[in-house]
Amino acid sequence: MQKQNYTAALIIIGNEILSGRTQDKNTAFLAETLGRHGISLHEVRIIPDIEAKIIETVNVMRAEADYVFTTGGIGPTHDDITAESIAKAFGVAWELNDEAYQMLVAHYRDEAEVTEARKKMAMIPAGAALIDNPVSGAPGFILENVHVMAGVPRIMQAMTENVVPNLSGGAVVQSQTITCQMAESELSAGLADIQNRFSDLDIGSYPNYHGSVGGLSVVIRSTDVDQIRAAGKEVITLMQSMGQEPTAVTAI
Amino acid sequence: MQKQNYTAALIIIGNEILSGRTQDKNTAFLAETLGRHGISLHEVRIIPDIEAKIIETVNVMRAEADYVFTTGGIGPTHDDITAESIAKAFGVAWELNDEAYQMLVAHYRDEAEVTEARKKMAMIPAGAALIDNPVSGAPGFILENVHVMAGVPRIMQAMTENVVPNLSGGAVVQSQTITCQMAESELSAGLADIQNRFSDLDIGSYPNYHGSVGGLSVVIRSTDVDQIRAAGKEVITLMQSMGQEPTAVTAI
Repeated sequence: MQKQNYTAALIIIGNEILSGRTQDKNTAFLAETLGRHGISLHEVRIIPDIEAKIIETVNVMRAEADYVFTTGGIGPTHDDITAESIAKAFGVAWELNDEAYQMLVAHYRDEAEVTEARKKMAMIPAGAALIDNPVSGAPGFILENVHVMAGVPRIMQAMTENVVPNLSGGAVVQSQTITCQMAESELSAGLADIQNRFSDLDIGSYPNYHGSVGGLSVVIRSTDVDQIRAAGKEVITLMQSMGQEPTAVTAI
Repeated sequence: MQKQNYTAALIIIGNEILSGRTQDKNTAFLAETLGRHGISLHEVRIIPDIEAKIIETVNVMRAEADYVFTTGGIGPTHDDITAESIAKAFGVAWELNDEAYQMLVAHYRDEAEVTEARKKMAMIPAGAALIDNPVSGAPGFILENVHVMAGVPRIMQAMTENVVPNLSGGAVVQSQTITCQMAESELSAGLADIQNRFSDLDIGSYPNYHGSVGGLSVVIRSTDVDQIRAAGKEVITLMQSMGQEPTAVTAI
């Protein structure tokens, strides 16, 4: 029987996110890409550039999730400690990888340009497969179920698109969003009743506040489109029973 | 002796972040606010709306960090399970809180408006102190070192500003950012040397790629402004020794 539920975890390695200096954009991109391939992101951890923390987090999450992704810390500077930490997490050597070295030579178009500093970007845990980096040359890598990628969003996105289509995934989760101008509490009893009857669906309700006007998005998620449609009709009927029309209903 | 290093952890409870539907904005806001009060955000975990996962994560992190913050899942609908889960994590009752109930009556201006559905927002773990919600009435709460807040950014921000100034913090981390148009690998040996000599500072280097022009930000962080200034001068001298001038240097 084919496996139906594939899970992924993301480890964001980066003091610059934890200090608030940089706003994370990689989570939403990875979540959406994985979702299109039938893989659910089930946890994200943002951790500092500390070797012991990286090793511990990678080892916990690679045992829990089908796929682990890391972002950040694979550049040439002293604070780029991800590759060496991953080698230690797996108990393998951290060594010059010939294929990665040739990628750098090809990127810089001259072997003399691959200085000692740049060679660090070709230091990869033994046994890893490489992930091409079309932006800045330095590859990511895959060791068992752990995918090590750059933190710069443009590079991370290119690496994600290189890697994720090759992974096994289950059925793709679809969703429908129904928006209205109602308070969450007005719908809560009716929504709970719909959730109880459609117990295989994931029904969430998300208020938002723009100025003084409150809005509400009800999001129905499942791999079963017919079930989403049936529950969606009931949500709309619930709103209408209270004298309201949805302000928007996404197509499914 | 006064404690110098205060740490915080953030637990984002939200399927809508893990699905990629919503981009998290709360991490950066909390990180910056904590930083101004001498508290370092040292880990963030984004987890799904699953009771067992919330209980496990809260119990791990409240033992590790001085302060824990959670966002999300305190509304009136069936998928809002944070308050009940926190009560279970602490092994205390989840019960109607009179003060929270009066906050809802004040917000809705009529006791009849505090329907059964809305009463759920006044169900709080026993022994908790409340966090005022100036936007939508329903309070957050504090139980020991765990601060439970709403996920909607506008409410989360108001709650953060109510809570964080009352917390004990250490010395405030200051930073200086020096930007240049150089490749990371050109600076890496010199930066590593500066980091070695200023071992108490946190020196990070962050490349960015806009079109074909690469830029680099060197960020120096410490509670010691004099040390930052001294290291910053050396970073600028390093750039100049390679024939480059910084394109921007932030004030400190």
